[in-house]
Amino acid sequence: MPSNFRRGFASDNNAGVHPDILAAMTAANTGHTVAYGDDPYTQSAIAQFKRHFGDHIEVFFVYNGTGANVLGLNAATRSYHSIICAESAHIHVDECGAPERFTGCKLLSIPTSDGKITVDQIKSHYHGIGFEHHAQPKVVSITQATELGTVYTLDEIRDITAYAHSKDLLVHMDGARLANAAVFLETDLKTITADAGIDILSFGGTKNGMMFGEAVVFFEPKLTHDFRYIRKQGMQLHSKMRFIAAQFEALLRDDLWHTNAHHANHMAQKLATELAAIPQIQITQQVKANGVFAIVPEAIIPSLQEAVFFYVWDEARSEVRWMTAFDTTEADIDNFVALVRNQLKMHP
Amino acid sequence: MPSNFRRGFASDNNAGVHPDILAAMTAANTGHTVAYGDDPYTQSAIAQFKRHFGDHIEVFFVYNGTGANVLGLNAATRSYHSIICAESAHIHVDECGAPERFTGCKLLSIPTSDGKITVDQIKSHYHGIGFEHHAQPKVVSITQATELGTVYTLDEIRDITAYAHSKDLLVHMDGARLANAAVFLETDLKTITADAGIDILSFGGTKNGMMFGEAVVFFEPKLTHDFRYIRKQGMQLHSKMRFIAAQFEALLRDDLWHTNAHHANHMAQKLATELAAIPQIQITQQVKANGVFAIVPEAIIPSLQEAVFFYVWDEARSEVRWMTAFDTTEADIDNFVALVRNQLKMHP
Amino acid sequence: MPSNFRRGFASDNNAGVHPDILAAMTAANTGHTVAYGDDPYTQSAIAQFKRHFGDHIEVFFVYNGTGANVLGLNAATRSYHSIICAESAHIHVDECGAPERFTGCKLLSIPTSDGKITVDQIKSHYHGIGFEHHAQPKVVSITQATELGTVYTLDEIRDITAYAHSKDLLVHMDGARLANAAVFLETDLKTITADAGIDILSFGGTKNGMMFGEAVVFFEPKLTHDFRYIRKQGMQLHSKMRFIAAQFEALLRDDLWHTNAHHANHMAQKLATELAAIPQIQITQQVKANGVFAIVPEAIIPSLQEAVFFYVWDEARSEVRWMTAFDTTEADIDNFVALVRNQLKMHP
Amino acid sequence: MPSNFRRGFASDNNAGVHPDILAAMTAANTGHTVAYGDDPYTQSAIAQFKRHFGDHIEVFFVYNGTGANVLGLNAATRSYHSIICAESAHIHVDECGAPERFTGCKLLSIPTSDGKITVDQIKSHYHGIGFEHHAQPKVVSITQATELGTVYTLDEIRDITAYAHSKDLLVHMDGARLANAAVFLETDLKTITADAGIDILSFGGTKNGMMFGEAVVFFEPKLTHDFRYIRKQGMQLHSKMRFIAAQFEALLRDDLWHTNAHHANHMAQKLATELAAIPQIQITQQVKANGVFAIVPEAIIPSLQEAVFFYVWDEARSEVRWMTAFDTTEADIDNFVALVRNQLKMHP
Repeated sequence: MPSNFRRGFASDNNAGVHPDILAAMTAANTGHTVAYGDDPYTQSAIAQFKRHFGDHIEVFFVYNGTGANVLGLNAATRSYHSIICAESAHIHVDECGAPERFTGCKLLSIPTSDGKITVDQIKSHYHGIGFEHHAQPKVVSITQATELGTVYTLDEIRDITAYAHSKDLLVHMDGARLANAAVFLETDLKTITADAGIDILSFGGTKNGMMFGEAVVFFEPKLTHDFRYIRKQGMQLHSKMRFIAAQFEALLRDDLWHTNAHHANHMAQKLATELAAIPQIQITQQVKANGVFAIVPEAIIPSLQEAVFFYVWDEARSEVRWMTAFDTTEADIDNFVALVRNQLKMHP
Repeated sequence: MPSNFRRGFASDNNAGVHPDILAAMTAANTGHTVAYGDDPYTQSAIAQFKRHFGDHIEVFFVYNGTGANVLGLNAATRSYHSIICAESAHIHVDECGAPERFTGCKLLSIPTSDGKITVDQIKSHYHGIGFEHHAQPKVVSITQATELGTVYTLDEIRDITAYAHSKDLLVHMDGARLANAAVFLETDLKTITADAGIDILSFGGTKNGMMFGEAVVFFEPKLTHDFRYIRKQGMQLHSKMRFIAAQFEALLRDDLWHTNAHHANHMAQKLATELAAIPQIQITQQVKANGVFAIVPEAIIPSLQEAVFFYVWDEARSEVRWMTAFDTTEADIDNFVALVRNQLKMHP
Repeated sequence: MPSNFRRGFASDNNAGVHPDILAAMTAANTGHTVAYGDDPYTQSAIAQFKRHFGDHIEVFFVYNGTGANVLGLNAATRSYHSIICAESAHIHVDECGAPERFTGCKLLSIPTSDGKITVDQIKSHYHGIGFEHHAQPKVVSITQATELGTVYTLDEIRDITAYAHSKDLLVHMDGARLANAAVFLETDLKTITADAGIDILSFGGTKNGMMFGEAVVFFEPKLTHDFRYIRKQGMQLHSKMRFIAAQFEALLRDDLWHTNAHHANHMAQKLATELAAIPQIQITQQVKANGVFAIVPEAIIPSLQEAVFFYVWDEARSEVRWMTAFDTTEADIDNFVALVRNQLKMHP
Repeated sequence: MPSNFRRGFASDNNAGVHPDILAAMTAANTGHTVAYGDDPYTQSAIAQFKRHFGDHIEVFFVYNGTGANVLGLNAATRSYHSIICAESAHIHVDECGAPERFTGCKLLSIPTSDGKITVDQIKSHYHGIGFEHHAQPKVVSITQATELGTVYTLDEIRDITAYAHSKDLLVHMDGARLANAAVFLETDLKTITADAGIDILSFGGTKNGMMFGEAVVFFEPKLTHDFRYIRKQGMQLHSKMRFIAAQFEALLRDDLWHTNAHHANHMAQKLATELAAIPQIQITQQVKANGVFAIVPEAIIPSLQEAVFFYVWDEARSEVRWMTAFDTTEADIDNFVALVRNQLKMHP
């Protein structure tokens, strides 16, 4: 077993666990406690969620982001409903059809250039209401920060939720990287969710320094009346729940969520700024969270990947994705930029 | 947050994580590694599984026992199939209908007194073959050790697999407590699975000292050709896979699985032996793994539960379940037995 | 194509269509009318249902009995619910797992000798309420007349619905042969459904002289708010709905439903009475509707089947099932009884 | 009950049943025959399908077009697959999400102007192969004739099937109006299906003069090994199957399918030709089958609809759809065209 791995820009879930979080897990490993969430660790973690998101929320812990998204959507839908989302949404392209399989719902996807959908685009899918042949629109799902590293502004979110609620649609937010968005917007977690009209939130932990565990936060309590059964039947109820709870406690208590996300965002800014200065590199998306998308000369990609792994995003246009994480260092960036410059010299 | 909890007999998943396993997780927390299982930790853990179960297996890690059972069954079935199991099977009574929901299959349950089904009982459900109105039997699922703390003998398993295979049925084993069964039978893991004709195994880690993570082991490689998609769509693919892998590595490398299960079994034997000596206590199942089932005077149950938590199994007959774990101590047993004796004096 | 087939006792759906019903279908075949149920034929047929079942019902037409049962149950459940029924229930043994697949629910089956379940048996499955690991009981489904030709008395139904409603359970009735039960009980359709506390009814047409089409009748209007979508997504919405509606109109307007069922029941009584007089034949169920179950010397079964087809019900005990239909004649019975007597002479 | 309804242009399933088909149903209504398809009527109808589509097909009758599409797709897929289709496909917009619900698959929809998808568009969805996060493309579904009244040429179909098969994709054809396409292409049914590389066909009866019933035709026999169970569990197995079989027999024996479709197409041509001569009317799709799409002055739509019902297709651009049927008469067209001209005078 290798004892050390080089940090790269492949994904924020290639990183490990933040030391404070691991310490909290270790501290929780004492004696017996009731399984499945009826334990004081879970109560305490829920209190942290209420501190950040408001007293009226209900929150449930699950294993992963797909579980959080799918079960949150399941709580809001019957199988004849449809869910409107961006064509680039994780629920549409990265969950192997789990939303359709588990909810039975149709996903209506909207092409975007930056991962963000607009009210006008949502409107184009709002029709056939009351017509039994047509899957009935029920949920709008937006990702914050998006899969393309962009961030909805507060006004953009409010516009979407206002329109949605006027049509009896619910708004789900995939917040696998919500922390990164909040940091970018220089706001707190409640302002961009509860206060902006979000009904259901998948709050991500794993991409921000946790080992496993995500949270489904409901701002509309009526949606939760049977969620315990949905979670259990959905195979997302953890027995030794204290070990998810202890992680969230550590993430939320002293605002480690903010520290981690702020660092990752900052590293992405640094990476983008330094690479943007290189003429052969073209940054393709506004860098707001912890991802950098860029068109790079095809010739240098393989040798870059060999040194520091990352993914090609769009092979056709030689576009790559670099993700930073809570543990990315300035030296990682400096070394990588130097590597790029060096490779470009070798492949002029 | 309380820093210490009293150990009880409620469940083996009320225990925490074995220190060696937690140490392995901590050791794995270094640098970046590829997510979703393409990492050296996972390769190494798979090698451990092959050492124990044979070179021809394929193994996949998932989050929990329900996930392992449901996805293993899903790999073997189409929705018009039926699955034959004991009425007490975890898949029938403790998974909130997840098997039906996710596989679409009908569960055919068999009443038993001891959690073990027989070939004759299976035969009674093997009919309607080729009759399209009838869900087609496809899998027999047995639990080893059973939910009632009993254990199938090797011959009993071989009888079931021989019959099943003669009828083109597959045999699934829910091995959430397989380690406890192997210890009781004084055999290794391969003998009671691969060699006994099992096709699909859910191999449990969480109840034997892990934090999270179970394994689906396939002894019939044809069943695995698309399991990666089943796992992903089934919301059971972990991103930071190394942290499940490191746990299994620790469990299987130096036979910690055996040590832990042996200890838990031994504690159950001790508990049963000492309680059996008390006239008012009637042990109701043969104690073979790490559970003790007993009829106890109703009057003393509440005060016992208050002191050391456990569950009532069958309220109608005042039957309770006590589970031991890797961390149960002799003192725990002694104290509990003294408590029982004391309570019986107070409620003669 | 053969122009004439011998009538047998295999099934009431081996019969054709009652001439009055076919005439109504032919009469409806004129001009254009709006598809999918927004037509005057459907309105008129619904009015007939209200005349028979009460003004407050809502009724929806579907294609077949499986569709009626499954979609009716779907309207009442979420996937984590369970449905309690007899082990012999059509939903349990004759629908190839469609209820599990489509609703996601677990079926809890109760062994019976006569196809009828009791309150005490239902009670044994009413537990684990509020316990998230346990599929939550939600519906009791009874079949009237049962698959074994027996009939629940009014008091038996009322006991079940009273118990069910006291526990917040709904009661579904599979009434594929409700007409036969009503005739036997000498009552009307409303008394044994709405007035007896039934919440959801599958009302059968096909086994009582129709060509295709069954009805889902809701006595609890809240259950129907989204049934149009459930039916459409459930693939049970017919486009040329007038042709189902015209059949029900014909069945219900002049009480053809009663005439047909009365005749079929009467033929079953005659068959049973005459066969009961033969010492080697043992009638095994009380004959109340249009089915006769009997143990018959194994030696004569093949030649009987060759002459007049019917099904063996339980091979192990040489039990057969004979079904009568609206078109069974006294001569059919006489000939068959003579055949039996003759065969018994040849195989003494 | 009204005895006569005005023919309109709303839909080909607002028409009734062709008299020859009704006569065949009536003729089949004699005596008893085995239910569920083991009867001589069904055998004979299957022979007709083989005559038209080739000896190596397998064909199964179901209730309706949604059932045919969904179950045909189900036979070809596992739940983690995706299905590529036009954005206007019936499976995408008119089946209330039944494909997703029943198959679990993701639908990937392609925007088109004329309802026809191209190989290049299909290619854009063929990626992520072997990547477990991505629903795996498995089926391309095309509609012939399309929902927009257009028709794929033979070469277009062959291009699609050649590409699909080169990528291990199957091709499904929604042939609810296949007869209309064959007539337009002046070819037979086999040439545009089996010979053009189609793997699975939904062959429509209801829109071409039948009362109920569609057929799933498999050109790849391996796909059918378990279709009987899929159909039964899919709630699409009819008991009195002879009455579907007799209809198909009548449709296919003396080429009534061709006569009916030819007439409907001819009426659509006539309607389009005469309306195209009116300057205020703009025909928006090439008229190849039995549908005419046109932009019409908004002011006259309500009064036209009141006289002769039809649907608005795209409210935003005042586009309407007129469908002709086997029973549309020249007088219907003449009257309607006169009505349009008259209304245009009143709303200049």
